[in-house]
Amino acid sequence: MLENVLASIRPVDADAAAAARARHDTLTKPPGSLGKLEALGVRLAAVQRSLKPHIRGAAIAVFAGDHGVTDAGVSAYPRAVTEQMVLNFLGGGAAINALSRVAGAELWVVDVGVDANLPEHPTLIQAKVRRGSRNFLHEPALTDLELSEALDVGIRVANHLIDNGANLLVGGDMGIGNSTPAAAITAALTGHSPALVTGRGTGVDDAGLRRKVEVIERALAKHQPDPNNPLSVLAALGGLEIAALTGFYLGAASKQVAVILDGFIVTSAALVAAALNPEVTGYLFASHTSQEPGHLIQLNALGLTPLFDFQMRLGEGSGAALSIPLFKSAAAVLSEMATFGEAGVAEA
Amino acid sequence: MLENVLASIRPVDADAAAAARARHDTLTKPPGSLGKLEALGVRLAAVQRSLKPHIRGAAIAVFAGDHGVTDAGVSAYPRAVTEQMVLNFLGGGAAINALSRVAGAELWVVDVGVDANLPEHPTLIQAKVRRGSRNFLHEPALTDLELSEALDVGIRVANHLIDNGANLLVGGDMGIGNSTPAAAITAALTGHSPALVTGRGTGVDDAGLRRKVEVIERALAKHQPDPNNPLSVLAALGGLEIAALTGFYLGAASKQVAVILDGFIVTSAALVAAALNPEVTGYLFASHTSQEPGHLIQLNALGLTPLFDFQMRLGEGSGAALSIPLFKSAAAVLSEMATFGEAGVAEA
Repeated sequence: MLENVLASIRPVDADAAAAARARHDTLTKPPGSLGKLEALGVRLAAVQRSLKPHIRGAAIAVFAGDHGVTDAGVSAYPRAVTEQMVLNFLGGGAAINALSRVAGAELWVVDVGVDANLPEHPTLIQAKVRRGSRNFLHEPALTDLELSEALDVGIRVANHLIDNGANLLVGGDMGIGNSTPAAAITAALTGHSPALVTGRGTGVDDAGLRRKVEVIERALAKHQPDPNNPLSVLAALGGLEIAALTGFYLGAASKQVAVILDGFIVTSAALVAAALNPEVTGYLFASHTSQEPGHLIQLNALGLTPLFDFQMRLGEGSGAALSIPLFKSAAAVLSEMATFGEAGVAEA
Repeated sequence: MLENVLASIRPVDADAAAAARARHDTLTKPPGSLGKLEALGVRLAAVQRSLKPHIRGAAIAVFAGDHGVTDAGVSAYPRAVTEQMVLNFLGGGAAINALSRVAGAELWVVDVGVDANLPEHPTLIQAKVRRGSRNFLHEPALTDLELSEALDVGIRVANHLIDNGANLLVGGDMGIGNSTPAAAITAALTGHSPALVTGRGTGVDDAGLRRKVEVIERALAKHQPDPNNPLSVLAALGGLEIAALTGFYLGAASKQVAVILDGFIVTSAALVAAALNPEVTGYLFASHTSQEPGHLIQLNALGLTPLFDFQMRLGEGSGAALSIPLFKSAAAVLSEMATFGEAGVAEA
């Protein structure tokens, strides 16, 4: 499935972008006066190959998985919290539930690797590949087969949401310990040191932060990941939800659908996706700047500029969900505003 | 009417703010992980005197008026554009129409001083005080009676929107030339020089910018406005829509309703409101940072921090409208999220 998806990703449409840019200057406002909202609209036009982009529906998929490396004491929270938070998502009580309701977005939870048996639920997609990744201090986090299965989960979820009418996607993450594999992948793919790209995640103390950095340094020394082979990096250091998110981004790009990045975890998956096919970045949009110090490093590597900085560090897709109305607004400006001519307004 | 409103403004509720702050730390997320969204929720709690704030309805009122000082060539657009843009608002073709639809906010237009006869329309509130302000290079912009009437229009509009169910208000502005009175008021009330607080408005060139600064310097020299008498500043240098916005902010605060600031024009009205009663600032929220250089100076004077910077400079309430979903999100976090105890999630 991955090969077909990678081969089907086309560049975004520069002509539509140029047409949208020109249209902005005919709309009833001083040219350029909507600032970054105009730039966002131009990028949406390029993705949708139309100078009048339209957000038909927004959908959020939160991918959940556990991590073998939590055995090394890299998180402030116990591993059981992954399952507990998934149940909280299904019960409607988490931040992403509140934020997706306000944004008018569908919310789905995808179990790709939670270390628990989860109940059936109408918004839970059961796609468990394994009950958590392996501890990458001792062995690769995922086998090639597990990696392939997790990538396919993400591709299939993207296709499913798009087939059901969404044309603006958000991938979120839930997985206690997952800022450690995210930092390891980021270090491996960008070449930056673990100390530079590793942060406190949900809130480890100074000793915990030192432990995280050391764990990542040891893992990099053990696996010697090759940045020119992104799938091997993901197998060695990844997690099941991170692999599924990689597939999700590739799937969205292959269907020419815009997808909004959240924070540090999901952006590590975006780094892998962009390493597999650089055209993916045309379909990726940064929302917020996370408090994790490695996040801006990731976004710079992708050439993406965040829309706002709310000093958030939650994950779940929360920052991306907050930004959904900005995307709807940027599209509405291009598709709903009158031109000077249509409205009979004098130009400067 | 003004005296009663000024006397009825109470401070926001510090106890509710403290309770909301404490509640945030019991919700199913790492403490503080929603960053500025948590701070926004705490302020909404203080305004609504409840640790579970709720946005029942959002309403935007765009106040429109013309300006005598346009005779001095201070705008890139002809004066007739005020009327043309009001008709565009009524026809649904302006930026604020698109943005208010996305935000799920009612949109009203208030004619408080347009130099034209406007048609009846279901979303137009006809409250014209005069066909434009006077040219403050030669005489005070408004008589005391005109000022009083315009303030009352704003108070009545705020009351009307609140009585009809809105508990989150936005005031927008439309008035060709109005960045000149806004800069004059800002210079008079903050003590900063006209050169520092004056920008390009809708886009005047270098010569136009020099002309604006000189016009404001001449007006300040002529009227010698006294910052300790904010109403006299508003009468000498203001405009009808700016005076109505001042009343609008005071009216919202007196009803204990949150009101979101937009850019440079409306914030000059907020400066006057805060000078009349400093407790108003507890009810005022900054949304974006405008491209007008004086806007951050105004916000600093009010002690307010903007949520984002989209490099916008349109007015109409556009930046504030964009921020409405952020306010709904901040309220939803406090009022809809489950606590660790309720959700059975382990704490760190």
